[in-house]
Amino acid sequence: MGIVVLYGSSRRNGNTDKLADLLVEGLNADKIYLSDYHLQPITDYRHTELGAYPDDDYHELIDRVLEQDTIVFATPIYWYGISGVLKTFIDRWSQSLREDRDHFLSKMSAKRAYVIAVGDDEPQLKGLPLIQQFQYIFDFTRTQFDGYIIGEGNKPGSILEDTTALSSVDELRKRIILND
Amino acid sequence: MGIVVLYGSSRRNGNTDKLADLLVEGLNADKIYLSDYHLQPITDYRHTELGAYPDDDYHELIDRVLEQDTIVFATPIYWYGISGVLKTFIDRWSQSLREDRDHFLSKMSAKRAYVIAVGDDEPQLKGLPLIQQFQYIFDFTRTQFDGYIIGEGNKPGSILEDTTALSSVDELRKRIILND
Amino acid sequence: MGIVVLYGSSRRNGNTDKLADLLVEGLNADKIYLSDYHLQPITDYRHTELGAYPDDDYHELIDRVLEQDTIVFATPIYWYGISGVLKTFIDRWSQSLREDRDHFLSKMSAKRAYVIAVGDDEPQLKGLPLIQQFQYIFDFTRTQFDGYIIGEGNKPGSILEDTTALSSVDELRKRIILND
Amino acid sequence: MGIVVLYGSSRRNGNTDKLADLLVEGLNADKIYLSDYHLQPITDYRHTELGAYPDDDYHELIDRVLEQDTIVFATPIYWYGISGVLKTFIDRWSQSLREDRDHFLSKMSAKRAYVIAVGDDEPQLKGLPLIQQFQYIFDFTRTQFDGYIIGEGNKPGSILEDTTALSSVDELRKRIILND
Repeated sequence: MGIVVLYGSSRRNGNTDKLADLLVEGLNADKIYLSDYHLQPITDYRHTELGAYPDDDYHELIDRVLEQDTIVFATPIYWYGISGVLKTFIDRWSQSLREDRDHFLSKMSAKRAYVIAVGDDEPQLKGLPLIQQFQYIFDFTRTQFDGYIIGEGNKPGSILEDTTALSSVDELRKRIILND
Repeated sequence: MGIVVLYGSSRRNGNTDKLADLLVEGLNADKIYLSDYHLQPITDYRHTELGAYPDDDYHELIDRVLEQDTIVFATPIYWYGISGVLKTFIDRWSQSLREDRDHFLSKMSAKRAYVIAVGDDEPQLKGLPLIQQFQYIFDFTRTQFDGYIIGEGNKPGSILEDTTALSSVDELRKRIILND
Repeated sequence: MGIVVLYGSSRRNGNTDKLADLLVEGLNADKIYLSDYHLQPITDYRHTELGAYPDDDYHELIDRVLEQDTIVFATPIYWYGISGVLKTFIDRWSQSLREDRDHFLSKMSAKRAYVIAVGDDEPQLKGLPLIQQFQYIFDFTRTQFDGYIIGEGNKPGSILEDTTALSSVDELRKRIILND
Repeated sequence: MGIVVLYGSSRRNGNTDKLADLLVEGLNADKIYLSDYHLQPITDYRHTELGAYPDDDYHELIDRVLEQDTIVFATPIYWYGISGVLKTFIDRWSQSLREDRDHFLSKMSAKRAYVIAVGDDEPQLKGLPLIQQFQYIFDFTRTQFDGYIIGEGNKPGSILEDTTALSSVDELRKRIILND
């Protein structure tokens, strides 16, 4: 019941945003543009006393994520991986594990996840390690990895010429509506 | 002629640091602990006028990297990928491409790179997408990817029990000395 | 000018065959059902005198492949990899390299390749190493890897319920017709 | 209690064989050179009546494998994947699943597996999909994937110059002896 979209782009209305917008068009979705928020890198407290975590927007954002049943991760492929700002957000999940492991994992294991990744250098091939990384992430959180779309785009708006990506959006969209 | 080590950990003297330190012990290496510096996420200016890039430590750091012949990337495996702080640094290479593409690529293509990655959840398997990502990165910059070590460690110091990683460090170290 | 489809299934009219048939329906395609032919495993003559290669159907088949501009590799995902019979055929390319390396590589580098892979255990994720393997294969032969489809199917005919795969077939089909 | 080595090479005493021999030197190991046996490709009977499987050496070989606690898969990297003859053997496991699924899986889940793979074209990078494929295979059979070695070699005997592979053999060897 409910969708949250995590936008990992550094630029608004880029190709990644456009593709994600098409996926949830007309659906009720909480859209989080990560670059609008303040997120510090993780500090590793695993082997120290539970410290003061950064006082930034993390808690607000993770709470909004945990409220929804469906998470869409929309990331441009930067240097063949997840964008830095989205990676920083995911890294902070370790804080949630430290603060309340059972609650976090129990929430995450009840969700479905979708990944949208857009790149410009053979993303259908060079984006595969990124997909495999998400697979391991969702294996860990026991989140159902229900589908992904890899799009190709470079110039503004060029994603709209990637007809394969567009038709995959239609298919994933049906699946999201069915499950919602 | 010379080595630079990029430490991507959020914690000093963790297992990743220890393994990287062993690799360059006694060698002349410029050690950059990324978490000691201020690095902003990339802003995507590819399709806008060349803007004012963040006024932080990026230029100082990339200059130190470009001065050396050998780069060691030492990253803990966070959520099955490169640590956020190291990824943020690599993302910023797009700024160098924008500012002086030929200079940056010409410098990078003359270097050798080594990757040290340490994780605690089957890193020899679940760390492979991270290695593949580096492969694509170095393909792009035409940097010679001369070797990598995946270590396993969780508790402080436990990397010293990963005898396979330790013996791989010895082997890579010989190669670095030979090439230096 | 012309298409060849290499069917790697051990069973006729299975899900993989069906998906490949849809891709080339109405087009002029040479369909090779590898399991109908006699193909011996490769013998490694790299470091011996050029020996007598197996007297089987390899030469006939590779000649038919080299005649066409577009190759479709249609393989069920067996044990998370290329089917044994298709792998055996590809392994034999080493014979062609030995017999006339320049001719073989020159021919292969002028072609476009498509891969269709159908599996029943999370093929969208667990089929990715198979795609990466093909990427390395085509990098070596300098063949243009123009697209792939991963389908999900187990029971006879169930591929026809994988609407994502079907719409991807439509997209690839347009690309094949355009290039043909 | 006991080790079986599956040699997937098409050539005896090649680099892959040599590396595997070093791993089990002095240990009691059943060595199976697959190319010495007659193995037909799998026929897919999943959706037909249980048919007559090929009358070849499969049953003898799989029985010898199932008798031991430790399996070493030693394969040259042919075209960036498992050799055809070893793949054909693994494909036939589907026959064992069909004939007695519970017995086969129960046996396999009690074993430890090691993979040795030797290639000549950047095997440390281009051999990674092969390792990931084995990971999925062992996930399915619930076999413990206890380690792997990727070696580099082309000319006869050149594997003995890959000191990294040799030191990894020493490390895996200790682990095998410890568990045996």
